[in-house]
Amino acid sequence: MALIEAFRQLLGDGAVLTREEDLAGLTEDWRGRYRAPALCAVLPSNTAQVAAVVRLCVEHGVPVLPQGGNTSLCGGATPADQGKRPVIIALTRMRRIRSIDPVNNTMEVDAGCVLATIQEAAAAAGRLYPVSLGAEGSCQIGGNIATNAGGTGVLRYGNTRDNVLGLEVVLPDGSIWDGLYALRKNNTGYDLKHLFIGSEGTLGIVTGAVLKLHPLPTAETVAWLAVDGPEQALEVLGLFQASCNSRLSAFELINSNQVRLVLEQVPGRRCPVARVDGWHVLVELSDTGDTQAIAGTMQAVLERALELGLISDGVVASSEAQRKAMWLVRHSVSEANKKAGVGLTSDTAVPVSAVPAFIAQATAAVHVIAPGVPIVVVGHMGDGNIHFIPFFSFAAWEAMANRAEVADQMRRAIDDAAAALRGTFSAEHGIGRTLTGEMARYKAPVELRLMRAVKQAFDPSGLFNPGRVLPVAREASSPSSDATDTRES
Amino acid sequence: MALIEAFRQLLGDGAVLTREEDLAGLTEDWRGRYRAPALCAVLPSNTAQVAAVVRLCVEHGVPVLPQGGNTSLCGGATPADQGKRPVIIALTRMRRIRSIDPVNNTMEVDAGCVLATIQEAAAAAGRLYPVSLGAEGSCQIGGNIATNAGGTGVLRYGNTRDNVLGLEVVLPDGSIWDGLYALRKNNTGYDLKHLFIGSEGTLGIVTGAVLKLHPLPTAETVAWLAVDGPEQALEVLGLFQASCNSRLSAFELINSNQVRLVLEQVPGRRCPVARVDGWHVLVELSDTGDTQAIAGTMQAVLERALELGLISDGVVASSEAQRKAMWLVRHSVSEANKKAGVGLTSDTAVPVSAVPAFIAQATAAVHVIAPGVPIVVVGHMGDGNIHFIPFFSFAAWEAMANRAEVADQMRRAIDDAAAALRGTFSAEHGIGRTLTGEMARYKAPVELRLMRAVKQAFDPSGLFNPGRVLPVAREASSPSSDATDTRES
Repeated sequence: MALIEAFRQLLGDGAVLTREEDLAGLTEDWRGRYRAPALCAVLPSNTAQVAAVVRLCVEHGVPVLPQGGNTSLCGGATPADQGKRPVIIALTRMRRIRSIDPVNNTMEVDAGCVLATIQEAAAAAGRLYPVSLGAEGSCQIGGNIATNAGGTGVLRYGNTRDNVLGLEVVLPDGSIWDGLYALRKNNTGYDLKHLFIGSEGTLGIVTGAVLKLHPLPTAETVAWLAVDGPEQALEVLGLFQASCNSRLSAFELINSNQVRLVLEQVPGRRCPVARVDGWHVLVELSDTGDTQAIAGTMQAVLERALELGLISDGVVASSEAQRKAMWLVRHSVSEANKKAGVGLTSDTAVPVSAVPAFIAQATAAVHVIAPGVPIVVVGHMGDGNIHFIPFFSFAAWEAMANRAEVADQMRRAIDDAAAALRGTFSAEHGIGRTLTGEMARYKAPVELRLMRAVKQAFDPSGLFNPGRVLPVAREASSPSSDATDTRES
Repeated sequence: MALIEAFRQLLGDGAVLTREEDLAGLTEDWRGRYRAPALCAVLPSNTAQVAAVVRLCVEHGVPVLPQGGNTSLCGGATPADQGKRPVIIALTRMRRIRSIDPVNNTMEVDAGCVLATIQEAAAAAGRLYPVSLGAEGSCQIGGNIATNAGGTGVLRYGNTRDNVLGLEVVLPDGSIWDGLYALRKNNTGYDLKHLFIGSEGTLGIVTGAVLKLHPLPTAETVAWLAVDGPEQALEVLGLFQASCNSRLSAFELINSNQVRLVLEQVPGRRCPVARVDGWHVLVELSDTGDTQAIAGTMQAVLERALELGLISDGVVASSEAQRKAMWLVRHSVSEANKKAGVGLTSDTAVPVSAVPAFIAQATAAVHVIAPGVPIVVVGHMGDGNIHFIPFFSFAAWEAMANRAEVADQMRRAIDDAAAALRGTFSAEHGIGRTLTGEMARYKAPVELRLMRAVKQAFDPSGLFNPGRVLPVAREASSPSSDATDTRES
């Protein structure tokens, strides 16, 4: 085929993959849920090659599918099973740390750099790149930017969006936008950078970025608290915010069902407090300087919370090992849930003040559909981002006749509860192909119209990652089913 | 006229201004530099009225000029002197604090709220709205959002953009986008909010916003330092960043010419350190909790800076009065410069690490044009935002034959020096009508093309604030002259 031949001429034979066995890791997502053929995959080594590839695709009217580490949780990075087969542009070979400026606290990188590599390069320069998430060992910064990745550092440092100062993007016409500014202030026209961040490869391909670095924290203290419920957790959060300012770096809410699943399923985990019943909070303070000051603050806030009757128990990690053990309970959640059964995970966020109401209302709504079904709750309470999970044992799930229907009803009940509190159905994972139905259901027509106008302005031929982010007209209001989803991070 | 009659029917007679004396404050900017007639001004009381006004304007093909506090420094908020006379939509009557949620740390406001009113309402709820700038007593939040206003809090809290969670916008077709989310995380499609922020009323009219609030700082410490030059100031900045993390809330660089002008022109000001010669730094730390901890940090960093020979003198304010006195020297800069002569101010930003090179290269370039002309430097060094000001006594200025030409040459030399270091010609003031020539000169064609595509997509009839932000094709590369500009903040 002429297009593939042109790619070979441009990039060399080794950078153009066409055989099924070579494409396998690129045409299927890592959880094995989405799989569809691609025309081929190309592995450009630099921005000019990406631009040349795009121009060839446009010339041949072939869809373009940008791919980073292929760690999407919503089918954003693998081929669609309808329409023309796309060319996958994988940025794996573009993994240069271009430069680090510790005085400006910035780093310029290729989009194919793995997140962990960036974290390590920052640390080697005595700085912190603060975005941290489960997939950091394989996800790429270009994908993080395309999806505005969240993770555990958001409370203190914001999302990926808040840690990007500049971008280099190959546009749908094959031209290159060099927006690699390393500036804290720049009021010169429309902010194109923020438009590309979170656009999931539908407006262009991010090929490079200038990232913001922070001082490397040198002191950390972690505590595990027992609280009666989300209301009390919220009041404790308020105490920490008032006393700790930006030293509060994590505030995670976990219910007893979730803790119990971890204890049962993952060997070696133990509950840091005496009683598993009730609700749990993992709180972390971090700072530059020595640990003494934040340890004192932690102690003072916990004493106050005890006095006020907001917590019934609280353990401060007294060693690095204890600190890690507490985080391990939190980080074992996905593994435990996968082993224990089927969790119908959601990725909602509501205003922080509405978290207790959301949990109560979502629970009531789910229990109308399936009375008494256990509810697992784990989330970044400090951001209002709760993963609310109706949970089934494998046996209970298999015994249910109308699984897909129940899953759809529950997802809708949970997302409706969030929407009623002016929340969102996708806090940190994006839309991909899984949630375009929810876009149609929850977004106002005027907002969809504006988004479509942007898409049309940037990609008039519609070749960039078609079928993602924006619902097609006919999808009107039928959210897709993704019954065995187990996303919680 | 039918349109004005329709406005009267819609809003009532008192909300439609047509007489020249009623329009005077709206058709001329506060510095008296721009003045042109409007068709009329309307004063809607709510969002629905704004939308109805816009629909009438579109129907009649009349340009729309949104206006907040009319404090623009670059002619962004007053009528243009060419094209059809616009309808000024002034949001003065829309000044409700709609709600405050101290638990979610958010506040929803009408766009016509004055910035100071918002700061006060936040403080009354025990919270901080951190954007602070010279015009805060009269500028409106809608204008702050439309221009992504900066100010003195940027180092710690970011620009206006970083403190807005949601927006309500009346679009150029008269429909309303309700994007009043109060969420920290929301990855559901293109980020329209960031597109409107900084678009200077060319894509829609902001009518409401959800703002982010922060803990109210309860401890502050301020010091005035004497340094040999910008290089040493930069090293001191690094020491503070490493030890103080986000407690560093201001780091201002001022040269001796600037300090001398303040001492000469403004009664009651005195230099906090013994020697006026050399360079000066004003540094502020702030935090929740008591002052003791940050006072200790300040002391430790200053001792280290002395040991390293980075500062030759340093005075820590020992009372609230001394703290205020130090800030007064900084805040007297505009008044002093206005009294003393003509300053050709710039609003550049470069990477923080490039500030010393920028000052050296801009000085050399300006001295090629006018050997020995005094250079005044004052700026937010922590953000890389330097106001670099070739300064003339009134006598010297009047004696110069080719003033406009010299002013143009100097502005270009300064902006070129910033551009060579990958900096920007407008860090915090925006473009308005004054800097559209610079847009044409410094922005890559591909970036202008994307911006035009956005404008076309949102405002196809081109009626929203025409002539602002985007250069018209013929302006090619002739930056406008604004010879007696004295902007420094």
